[in-house]
Amino acid sequence: MSEELAARVHAALLARGETVASAESLTGGGLGRLLSATSGASATYRGGVVSYATDVKQSLLGVSEEVIARDGVVSAPCARQMAAGVRALLRADWSVSTTGVAGPTEQEGKPAGTVFVAVGGPDGVHADELRLPGDRTAVREATCHAALEALLAAVTAAG
Amino acid sequence: MSEELAARVHAALLARGETVASAESLTGGGLGRLLSATSGASATYRGGVVSYATDVKQSLLGVSEEVIARDGVVSAPCARQMAAGVRALLRADWSVSTTGVAGPTEQEGKPAGTVFVAVGGPDGVHADELRLPGDRTAVREATCHAALEALLAAVTAAG
Repeated sequence: MSEELAARVHAALLARGETVASAESLTGGGLGRLLSATSGASATYRGGVVSYATDVKQSLLGVSEEVIARDGVVSAPCARQMAAGVRALLRADWSVSTTGVAGPTEQEGKPAGTVFVAVGGPDGVHADELRLPGDRTAVREATCHAALEALLAAVTAAG
Repeated sequence: MSEELAARVHAALLARGETVASAESLTGGGLGRLLSATSGASATYRGGVVSYATDVKQSLLGVSEEVIARDGVVSAPCARQMAAGVRALLRADWSVSTTGVAGPTEQEGKPAGTVFVAVGGPDGVHADELRLPGDRTAVREATCHAALEALLAAVTAAG
């Protein structure tokens, strides 16, 4: 369950005295909702940006015109720039981002369920590509869960 | 149900060719999640800022030091500045904000369930104070619902 996973993320960050910020596209805020669900979340969650429109990804998160034109918003480079951008903007130790196609229609020629999540931290930014099944709601929820898993893995692996 | 209410908000904005942006504190992204839940939401929802930490309310949304010091973040003036700030930052026709005490502990001497939502639009910004019952999850969900209701009322009342 994603709420339990989010509580584990909160506990892992709290133990390290570190914070996280979120940058979301297809999840629209669902990831931030989970990161702030645990009582006391203000000690670890600084907030985030929901960059649903492409120009918000550029103006607030610094996603480059080159990435938009060459890779599109449904891409690993876009996810990485979103994570790097929000980490700097909100001055957090860690960051996590989501971008992809929730469906039902395809986007940039990529089918629904094509999703990228990225995690930023002290040692750089890493993105994963996912192919998620199900309808729009299922894709959005599975994206949040996968993003929390990626964040927890990175935080617990950090030295 | 909040998803149905969000679909009505989307339809009302779509009919007017207008957009909305969100600024969230205690709801942590839950309101953006609803505003982006409807298929085709990108036509009406531009995105938002989750300003969970107080300094993010100031740096990104322009909430003033005076309001923080005099009224606190759990206040109508803070909700109004959040709504005005995100509307300008994301260049949206409308905006909606949430700030308050999700609980379980009080904040700024105000009990859990003390919540302010504000709506910004072409004719200015208006805030409402709510006293919501229930636990942390219930308060957060009821806040999202009330914010959508306030937004829909403002949009449908606009000339």
